[in-house]
Amino acid sequence: MGTKIFLERSRCSRTRARTGCLFTRHGVIKTPVFMPVGTQASVKALTPGELVSLGAQVILGNTYHLYLRPGHELIGRLGGLHRFMNWHRPILTDSGGFQVYSLAPFRRIEEEGATFRSHVDGSTHLLTPELAMEIQEALGSDIMMALDTCIPYPSTQKETEEATDLTTRWAKRCLAARTRPELLLFGIVQGGMFKDLRIRHTEELLDLNFDGYALGGLSVGEPKEMLFEIIDYCRPLIPPEFPCYVMGVGTPEDLVECVGLGIDMFDCVMPTRNARNGMLFTSFGHIVIKNARFASDERPVDPECNCYTCRNYSRAYLRHLFMARELLSYRLNTIHNLHYYLKLMSDIRKAIEKDEFLRFKRDFYSKRDNEGSNNVQ
Amino acid sequence: MGTKIFLERSRCSRTRARTGCLFTRHGVIKTPVFMPVGTQASVKALTPGELVSLGAQVILGNTYHLYLRPGHELIGRLGGLHRFMNWHRPILTDSGGFQVYSLAPFRRIEEEGATFRSHVDGSTHLLTPELAMEIQEALGSDIMMALDTCIPYPSTQKETEEATDLTTRWAKRCLAARTRPELLLFGIVQGGMFKDLRIRHTEELLDLNFDGYALGGLSVGEPKEMLFEIIDYCRPLIPPEFPCYVMGVGTPEDLVECVGLGIDMFDCVMPTRNARNGMLFTSFGHIVIKNARFASDERPVDPECNCYTCRNYSRAYLRHLFMARELLSYRLNTIHNLHYYLKLMSDIRKAIEKDEFLRFKRDFYSKRDNEGSNNVQ
Repeated sequence: MGTKIFLERSRCSRTRARTGCLFTRHGVIKTPVFMPVGTQASVKALTPGELVSLGAQVILGNTYHLYLRPGHELIGRLGGLHRFMNWHRPILTDSGGFQVYSLAPFRRIEEEGATFRSHVDGSTHLLTPELAMEIQEALGSDIMMALDTCIPYPSTQKETEEATDLTTRWAKRCLAARTRPELLLFGIVQGGMFKDLRIRHTEELLDLNFDGYALGGLSVGEPKEMLFEIIDYCRPLIPPEFPCYVMGVGTPEDLVECVGLGIDMFDCVMPTRNARNGMLFTSFGHIVIKNARFASDERPVDPECNCYTCRNYSRAYLRHLFMARELLSYRLNTIHNLHYYLKLMSDIRKAIEKDEFLRFKRDFYSKRDNEGSNNVQ
Repeated sequence: MGTKIFLERSRCSRTRARTGCLFTRHGVIKTPVFMPVGTQASVKALTPGELVSLGAQVILGNTYHLYLRPGHELIGRLGGLHRFMNWHRPILTDSGGFQVYSLAPFRRIEEEGATFRSHVDGSTHLLTPELAMEIQEALGSDIMMALDTCIPYPSTQKETEEATDLTTRWAKRCLAARTRPELLLFGIVQGGMFKDLRIRHTEELLDLNFDGYALGGLSVGEPKEMLFEIIDYCRPLIPPEFPCYVMGVGTPEDLVECVGLGIDMFDCVMPTRNARNGMLFTSFGHIVIKNARFASDERPVDPECNCYTCRNYSRAYLRHLFMARELLSYRLNTIHNLHYYLKLMSDIRKAIEKDEFLRFKRDFYSKRDNEGSNNVQ
């Protein structure tokens, strides 16, 4: 496998930004790509048809959640996650490691795996590398992630080294446990904020010959500058024939910055979760729809936006739906925010192909500076 | 006005079932019709486009809710309820009287109007017949309802007579306060379970010359047989040139029975509210989707159903969404239930037009008897 699944298409002459094609058994993904999060076999509030209309190329499913409910064996018996949720484009699944770290009310990491208590019903489970592969193969994920260990920021070099070494041993067990080679498998580079550990771990994982690589152990509380610094340092360690994914990133600004650092793939709950909290992204910053100044505002959320929500509804109506806790509020806001994120990535791809990424980036920031969210009329 | 807005098209030769056309400024409504409830300027979880796909001809908006939030003046300034919520077919609004009766934590009925405390913020309001008209005209409702008084079941003849007489005086004030004759106005017949009061009140309201009539004061706790008995008794008192509406009814069986008694219009929260509670209507009865026997059931909710939900999703997936409290659950269930109700009414209209209503009714009940919900595999 390895080098054959990704094809670089164009490259910015002044940054590391690039476009490419990632080949999966459910179709080709144009990168850089943002993957909406569909935690529990659903991108919250939307149908697959709407996701396609919005231009979603691939969505992320959460191994931890689907293992606990409804169970990977059930989904496997019913023909896999694509059929279960009626989504026929690619799916990437995480390994469950990060959710054990962030959601489970109790966890213990040992050589064998991660023992944790379910946030759903309190039952105890042992997530091993072998189980992580079994779950993802039962789901029929197009891109599986190797089980890694997560540690908080800050951690000592010793703690980080131990977790990184364990991640390598688990990575080998994931590869050994894999039975469906047509499902891609990505390794996750750890090493915390320590550059020497990052180098060593990248080399160890490259030797194992995964189909692609993610930079893990980021967005765990470190300062934003440190995130960019680690990505800037680590990205060139991975050869260009591999797709490179940063997990759990981020704001629109984060995406623009990380594309410039050479990242190909992103996922984040921000557009969907913030939509449900009434925070809407626009070309001039974000707006908080419950703000009283929108009560009788007849304009769409973003006059430059062409999404279903902006074509059909006023800020006044969206504010009303939000204040009244109407279900349609979550849906219309999610459509708008995902449209914003997916259009942003599409615009980024076009800019890179014309070698105008830096001009795109300048325009992106200048709109925000001129009409920041505090200045929205 | 009066007699010109409704045209009878066909009539069953053996029951009082009939089809007709009700003309409004947002288009013609084919009767018998079921109106989905869009309480707070939204039929919960659905877009107007979905409602149109489902065949909804007219929806109901709640005067009480929209007056309290976001306020009728705001909606009026923004161009009316149709524009606010992006629904361009007819809207019927109730008068607010029933919600004051059923929702407000405190209320006092006096000659002037109904004083009540808001269930949203506890503020005190006085709903008069004049205000009920002002609100509905500001919303731009196609079919407005006169403010009536509601009393519980059982009530004495004296209590019922007093409430009925007050409803007549309020009906006159509604007609006097009306400024937009292009918006239809229906009167509401009260009289509780007392036939002599029903006769007298129907005559009083007919003298006032409303555009249509509703049978009110029903579905307030009386036995089901009494509901049908009162409708059977009262319906012929209203001349056939008027559309006749029974408010807040009902189950699929109720609709079939009431159509046979000559009723033209219905509304009820049952299909939408029950959808959100996981109760799904089918041709063979209803199913409760959270039931464990559906956990790995690959079949659609109703194999005979052609709705978006049944064409694309298994009972197993719908059960998973419901158990996981996913927002898509409310939406897919609502689509299915409204499709069921609207298709039922469409089938009823076709049957009446072919003078096969009684055969339709026999088939409707025999499917339920043969494959009742307890027998769903």
